[in-house]
Amino acid sequence: MSSPAARPLPPGLVSLADHEAHARRVLDDNAWAYFSGGAADELTLRANRGAWDRLELLPRVLRPLAGGHTRVPLLGRTLAHPILLAPVAYQRMAHPDGELATAHAAAALGAGLVLSTQASTRLEDVAQAVLGDPGRGPLWFQLYLQPDRGLTRELVRRAEQAGYEALVLTVDAPVHGARDRERRAGFRLPPGIQAVNLAGRPAAPPPPLQPGQSALFDGLLAHAPTWEDLAWLQAQTRLPVLLKGVLHEDDARQAASLQLAGLIVSNHGGRTLDTTPASAARLPRIAEAVAGQLPVLVDGGIRRGTDVLKAMALGASAVLVGRPAIWGLANAGAMGVAHVLRLLRDELEIAMALCGCRTLDQAHGTLHSRFANTIYSHL
Amino acid sequence: MSSPAARPLPPGLVSLADHEAHARRVLDDNAWAYFSGGAADELTLRANRGAWDRLELLPRVLRPLAGGHTRVPLLGRTLAHPILLAPVAYQRMAHPDGELATAHAAAALGAGLVLSTQASTRLEDVAQAVLGDPGRGPLWFQLYLQPDRGLTRELVRRAEQAGYEALVLTVDAPVHGARDRERRAGFRLPPGIQAVNLAGRPAAPPPPLQPGQSALFDGLLAHAPTWEDLAWLQAQTRLPVLLKGVLHEDDARQAASLQLAGLIVSNHGGRTLDTTPASAARLPRIAEAVAGQLPVLVDGGIRRGTDVLKAMALGASAVLVGRPAIWGLANAGAMGVAHVLRLLRDELEIAMALCGCRTLDQAHGTLHSRFANTIYSHL
Amino acid sequence: MSSPAARPLPPGLVSLADHEAHARRVLDDNAWAYFSGGAADELTLRANRGAWDRLELLPRVLRPLAGGHTRVPLLGRTLAHPILLAPVAYQRMAHPDGELATAHAAAALGAGLVLSTQASTRLEDVAQAVLGDPGRGPLWFQLYLQPDRGLTRELVRRAEQAGYEALVLTVDAPVHGARDRERRAGFRLPPGIQAVNLAGRPAAPPPPLQPGQSALFDGLLAHAPTWEDLAWLQAQTRLPVLLKGVLHEDDARQAASLQLAGLIVSNHGGRTLDTTPASAARLPRIAEAVAGQLPVLVDGGIRRGTDVLKAMALGASAVLVGRPAIWGLANAGAMGVAHVLRLLRDELEIAMALCGCRTLDQAHGTLHSRFANTIYSHL
Amino acid sequence: MSSPAARPLPPGLVSLADHEAHARRVLDDNAWAYFSGGAADELTLRANRGAWDRLELLPRVLRPLAGGHTRVPLLGRTLAHPILLAPVAYQRMAHPDGELATAHAAAALGAGLVLSTQASTRLEDVAQAVLGDPGRGPLWFQLYLQPDRGLTRELVRRAEQAGYEALVLTVDAPVHGARDRERRAGFRLPPGIQAVNLAGRPAAPPPPLQPGQSALFDGLLAHAPTWEDLAWLQAQTRLPVLLKGVLHEDDARQAASLQLAGLIVSNHGGRTLDTTPASAARLPRIAEAVAGQLPVLVDGGIRRGTDVLKAMALGASAVLVGRPAIWGLANAGAMGVAHVLRLLRDELEIAMALCGCRTLDQAHGTLHSRFANTIYSHL
Repeated sequence: MSSPAARPLPPGLVSLADHEAHARRVLDDNAWAYFSGGAADELTLRANRGAWDRLELLPRVLRPLAGGHTRVPLLGRTLAHPILLAPVAYQRMAHPDGELATAHAAAALGAGLVLSTQASTRLEDVAQAVLGDPGRGPLWFQLYLQPDRGLTRELVRRAEQAGYEALVLTVDAPVHGARDRERRAGFRLPPGIQAVNLAGRPAAPPPPLQPGQSALFDGLLAHAPTWEDLAWLQAQTRLPVLLKGVLHEDDARQAASLQLAGLIVSNHGGRTLDTTPASAARLPRIAEAVAGQLPVLVDGGIRRGTDVLKAMALGASAVLVGRPAIWGLANAGAMGVAHVLRLLRDELEIAMALCGCRTLDQAHGTLHSRFANTIYSHL
Repeated sequence: MSSPAARPLPPGLVSLADHEAHARRVLDDNAWAYFSGGAADELTLRANRGAWDRLELLPRVLRPLAGGHTRVPLLGRTLAHPILLAPVAYQRMAHPDGELATAHAAAALGAGLVLSTQASTRLEDVAQAVLGDPGRGPLWFQLYLQPDRGLTRELVRRAEQAGYEALVLTVDAPVHGARDRERRAGFRLPPGIQAVNLAGRPAAPPPPLQPGQSALFDGLLAHAPTWEDLAWLQAQTRLPVLLKGVLHEDDARQAASLQLAGLIVSNHGGRTLDTTPASAARLPRIAEAVAGQLPVLVDGGIRRGTDVLKAMALGASAVLVGRPAIWGLANAGAMGVAHVLRLLRDELEIAMALCGCRTLDQAHGTLHSRFANTIYSHL
Repeated sequence: MSSPAARPLPPGLVSLADHEAHARRVLDDNAWAYFSGGAADELTLRANRGAWDRLELLPRVLRPLAGGHTRVPLLGRTLAHPILLAPVAYQRMAHPDGELATAHAAAALGAGLVLSTQASTRLEDVAQAVLGDPGRGPLWFQLYLQPDRGLTRELVRRAEQAGYEALVLTVDAPVHGARDRERRAGFRLPPGIQAVNLAGRPAAPPPPLQPGQSALFDGLLAHAPTWEDLAWLQAQTRLPVLLKGVLHEDDARQAASLQLAGLIVSNHGGRTLDTTPASAARLPRIAEAVAGQLPVLVDGGIRRGTDVLKAMALGASAVLVGRPAIWGLANAGAMGVAHVLRLLRDELEIAMALCGCRTLDQAHGTLHSRFANTIYSHL
Repeated sequence: MSSPAARPLPPGLVSLADHEAHARRVLDDNAWAYFSGGAADELTLRANRGAWDRLELLPRVLRPLAGGHTRVPLLGRTLAHPILLAPVAYQRMAHPDGELATAHAAAALGAGLVLSTQASTRLEDVAQAVLGDPGRGPLWFQLYLQPDRGLTRELVRRAEQAGYEALVLTVDAPVHGARDRERRAGFRLPPGIQAVNLAGRPAAPPPPLQPGQSALFDGLLAHAPTWEDLAWLQAQTRLPVLLKGVLHEDDARQAASLQLAGLIVSNHGGRTLDTTPASAARLPRIAEAVAGQLPVLVDGGIRRGTDVLKAMALGASAVLVGRPAIWGLANAGAMGVAHVLRLLRDELEIAMALCGCRTLDQAHGTLHSRFANTIYSHL
C-alpha cells in the first residue's frame, strides 16, 4: 500500500471495474469490507449490477448528432450531466483527504454531491470547499430521522446555514441490515475516523425492555420514524426534501402526495435487506406510479455510461453512484474521483451518440422495445 | 477435531452458512455424508435453497413498527416465533449431547421441537428435559407407520405418556431414497449410536418373494402405509396428527378432509426423490388448495430470516429447519443450536422491520408482487 | 489400466455417473473420444442430459403400492421393464468380450438389446449367445439403408435367420456428423476391431464429380435413402421395422402411416447434428403427433431411473440407453453392464414408489403439472 | 511464435474454435487485443455467439438430398455459398501477407470479400490479385462517410476504378466504442502497419470548442454523417451501396425506401456499444421489416456451419465472418483462411443434409418451430 496522500492516478484504469480492482489492493480488509459489502448473501448487491447489464440498448444510425449534450433539468437547475455522488459515510477511511477530495472532484466535473450524515468531515468544511465553484453541481445533505428530534433539527439548521440546497432523507434503513461481510471481518472504525457531525450527540438509549419484549421492535424501533415524522421534518426546513430508499409503488404514491422534491429509488446499495429487487427493476414501476409529479432518481449498481442512459430511458431524472467514487478516492484522492466521473460521462456521451440520441430527453427510445412489456420478468 | 463436549461457540460465525462451513470441518466424512447428503444428484437439495433465494421481498418505508413481534398462533398455542426444529435422526453422531442439547436449545429460544423416531436418545429423556421450561415451544414426536402396527401403537403410547403434544407422521419416504453420497462414503452408524426408541424391535421381515416378483414392491412395500392406515393411527391416539411430506395438491385436499391437525410441505430435505420441485415452489399451491382448513408448515432450504418471512408470505403457519440445527450442534452443542436459532430469529425481525411488517399476519404483502402470478415458473 | 478381461466390478460405483467417471480412467483416449464424444460443440449432448434433469416429478403419498411392477407391453410381448440397450458400434474396443458380454448382461437383466450393424462381433454369435435365455428381452438388429441394396438385403436375411425379432432402421445419420472430439483425438479403430458384419463388403464408391459439384450432395448423398427406400425394405422382410432418429412431428406422422412397428425419438446421442433439441423435449410432441398409432421409444441422456419414469410420463413405451452400457462394459465386462442395468431398474422402482405409481401406465401423473403447458419452453 | 511467413497449417484444427485457440498463441498481446476485443464488458460480444447456439435446428429424415447445393443469389449473381468475409482492418498485423492472403483464399473458396477502408494493403493491389479468378465471389469495398467529402469521393473513385462491385457503408460507428481491452493493452499499430488507403489524408481537425461544449458532440460528431450524406454518396457512384450496422427496424425501413442494394444486420462484432442485442436476435425482425424489398445480410458470432444455416432460416441472404478469417490468417496465411472457409462450408452442407434441406431456399423450415413465436425472448 503506497502512502495514500501521495497516490497519483495509477496507469491502466480504463473503466470503473478497473478502479474497483485497484482499490481492492489499496484498501485494507477492514475498510474494504465496509465499503464493498452488502447484506447477508449479497444477492441484491449482485442483482443491482446484473439488472443494468441485462437491459439492452438498440442503436440508431445516421441521425443528426451535432450539438448533442448531457444536460438535464433538476430541482430548478440545469445540470451539466445527470450523475450525482451518493452519500457514503466515513470517506476518510478510504483516503486522508476524504469527503473534501470527493467534493472537489464532484465540483470540478459538475457532478452533484450528497454528503452523508455520517461523513468523517464537518459538513460546514465540505460546503465551504465547493460552494464558490461556478461549475459545481447541486450540494445536498443526507440525514436520518433520529428518535431525538432536537438532534435532527440541529443537523437541519447546520445544513441550511452551511449552504446545502436540499435534504435527502434516507428511509430504508431503520435498522442496520445483516452485514455479514462486515461482521466476519470484525469491522471497526479506525482511530481518528468518526461521524464528526454527530459527535458528542450519541443516540438516546432505547426504552427498557419488559420480559418477552423484542430488543428490536420494543427497543431500537420503539421510535422508528413514520410518515408523520416526515411531515414534521418538512415543517422544520425551507429546503426541498428528497426521500431515499423507495422501492414500492404505494410508498412512491404517498410520497408524491406530500410535496416532496424527489424520490430516490434505492435498496441502499444492497446493504440493508437481501433479496430485494434490483433498483433498476423497480425504477420503471416507480416512475410510472408517480407519473411525473416529482423527479425520480436511482442508485445501485451503476458502473457504466450505458447504465446511466438506461436509467434515463426507464424514467430517471438523474442517477447516483456510491462505491465507484470511493474506489477513485482510494486510488488517487480527488484525482481518482474525478477520473471515475469523467469515465462515466464519456461513456454516457458515446452511448448517446451510438443510440442516435442527442439529448437525454430522447433517452426513452434507446431501450430495446422487447423490454417495454416484459422488463419486470427479465430483470 | 476438538473434543466435542468441550467445544465453545467458535468466533466469526455470523450466519447459518458460516455454521455449515465450520461443521464441515468438525464432523467426520461419515457423519457429514449422512447429515448433508441428498438423493441422487442432489438437484432438489440445491433447488430447495435456490427457490427461497429467488423470491424477492419488497421493502416498505416509514410505517409504524413499535410493538412489532414475531408471535404466531399454532394448534391452539401462541408461539414466540414460527421457527421449529425438524426431526433429524441420530443427533449424537453430531455431538455427544445429541438430542438433549438440541431440545435444551430449542426450549431456551422458544422454538418448537420435533423429535425423530430414529433419535439416538430415549424419547422420555428428551421430554423430561424440556417439559418444565415455561418458555419452550411445542414438543412433537415424529413417526413412520410401521408394517407392524403393534410397534407403531407402542411408540404412540410412549409419546403420549412422555408428554408429546402432537404426532408428525412422515409419509414421503416409504422407501429409502437413492442416497448416493451416503453410499459412496460407505456410511455406517458409529458404535454406540442407534435408534434407541426402536431398539429391540426390528422391522418384521418382508414376505418371501416368488420368482419374478419385485424385492421392492412385493417385499418392502407389500405393507406400505396407505390412507387407511392413517385413519387407524388417528383412532389410536388423542394427539393431533400432522402429515409431513406433502407436495401434491390432491394429497393436501385429501388430508384436509381427514381431521388432521396440519400439513408439512416437504421433500424430506431433498433426501428421498431427486428432481422433485423445491418445497418453496409447492407451498403456495398447497396453501391455496387447503384454503385455511388446516395449518400448513414447510421445511427445506430455510437458512435465512428472510426465508422465514417469505414462507409466511406464501401461506405457511410456521417453518421447520433441520440441517442448520445439526451444524450448530456439531459446532458447539446446545449453545450452537441456540446460536443458530437466534441468528434466524434476529434476521426475521430485521426483515420484518425493513418490510414495514409489524406482525407476521402482514407477511403476505412483503413479497414482490410480480410473483403473484408467476411464482411457479420462476421457482 | 488393469487387464480388461479380469476386471471385477470396482467398489463404490453407486450410480451411472460413477460408472462414467471410472470408465474414463479405464478406457484410453482413443476409445473414450469415440464413445463419449458428440457433434461439434456438444451442446445437444449436454442438452439431452439437462432436459431430463429439469423435468420435475411430483410425489404422491399413502397410495397402495403392493404388487407394483415395472412390466410394459411392447410389440406383442411383455417386458420385465422398459429399458433396452441402444445400438453402439465396436464394443470390443471397450472390453475384449464386447457385444457378447453386453448381450449376456442384457439377457440376465431382462433388458432388450439392439445390436449395431457396426458391431465388432458377428450378429449370429450374439444371437446364439442369448436366444435360449427364457428371461431375456427382445433382440433387435440395427441397420442403415446402404446405397447397395444387395448388401442391405443380405444383412436383413442374416438377421432374420439368426433369430432377430425386429429391425431398427437408423435414419438420422445419412452423413457422419462433425465429430470434432474424435477428429481432434485422431480417432482410429484399433487393430483387430472392425465392423465384422460388413467385412468384405465395402460401400460402393460414390459417382464421379463434375466441376462445381458438391462432394457431399453429389457424391456421398447421391443415393441417400428416402421414404421410397424404406418401403422397399419393408417389402424385403417379414420382421417389424422401427425407425430410429425421428425428431420432427411431420416425419413421425408419415412413419405412422406406413405400417412401421415403432419410432425411436433420438438425436443419435448428440453425435450427428449439434444444437438439435434434446430428445426429451421432442418426445411429448412426437407422442402426441402419432396419437398411439405406434409405440414411441426414446434415447438420449437417460442416466437415472427417474429419467426412465419421466420418459414414460411423456409418452414413451420404452427407453434405450447407449453410453452407460459401454461404461459398465469397460469397467467390468458383462458384470458391469448388468450392474448398470440393475442400478437403473432399482432407481426406477424407487421413483415409482415415491410417486405413488404402482405400474408404468400410471406414469403420466407423476410429472409436475406445470409442465403440461410449458414443457417445450422449459426444456 | 514461429516465423509467420512460413507457417504451414497446424495439425489438429478441426473447427473455428480450434483456429481461435491456436491464433491466441500465434498473435502477440497487442494484436490479439485489437482483433479479439469488444466494447466495454464484452457482453454483446458473448451474446452474439450465444444467440446462435441457443437457436435449435430440427432435423428431417429420408428426404431426397441428391443434387443439393449451397448456391444463393445475391445482387444479380449466383454465389457458390452464402459466406462472405467481413471487413477487418490492418490484416498485415496478423500475417505479413495480410489482405492479399485473405483475398486469395476467399477467391479460391468462392467466398465474397469486403475490403476494409482501413486495410493495410492498397485497395488496387487486392483487386488486382483476385479479379481474374473465375471462381471468386463478389468483391466489395467498405467505407465510412468522412466529414471531408473530398476524401470520401476519392475513395469511391478508386474503388470503382479498381473493380470493386459494391460499396459497404458502415454506419454504426460514428465514434470509436469503449474498447477497454485495447486500452488496457495499450494497443498501438506496429511499425509499418497503417491504413494505407487513407495515408496522407488525415481527418480534418474538429471545429474549436466553446467553453461548456462537448468534445464529442460539438467536436468529433459536429459533422457526423446523416441520411442526407447517404443520399449524397449514392449520387456520387454507380456502384450499389449496402448499409452495414443496422439493428433497428425503423432504420431498416428507412433504408428500404432509399434504393439501397442491401442491409447488413450487425453490431460491429460487439466492438462499439456494449449491451446491444445479439445480431441473431435482431435479424428476423429486420428481415420482417423490409419484407424482401432488399437483401439482408448478417454478421456477428457466426462460427459454425449450423450458424450459417440458422441465419438463412431467419431471413438472411448471406452472412459475413470477420475474426475467424483473421485466426486462419494468423495461423497459416492464405491456407489458414481457406481452411476456415472450407470448415464452415463443409459444416453447412452437413447441417443442410441432416435437416433434409437440399437448397438454402428451404432453410426456413429447419429451425425448431417453437422459435416462431418466441425467438425474441429466447435470444
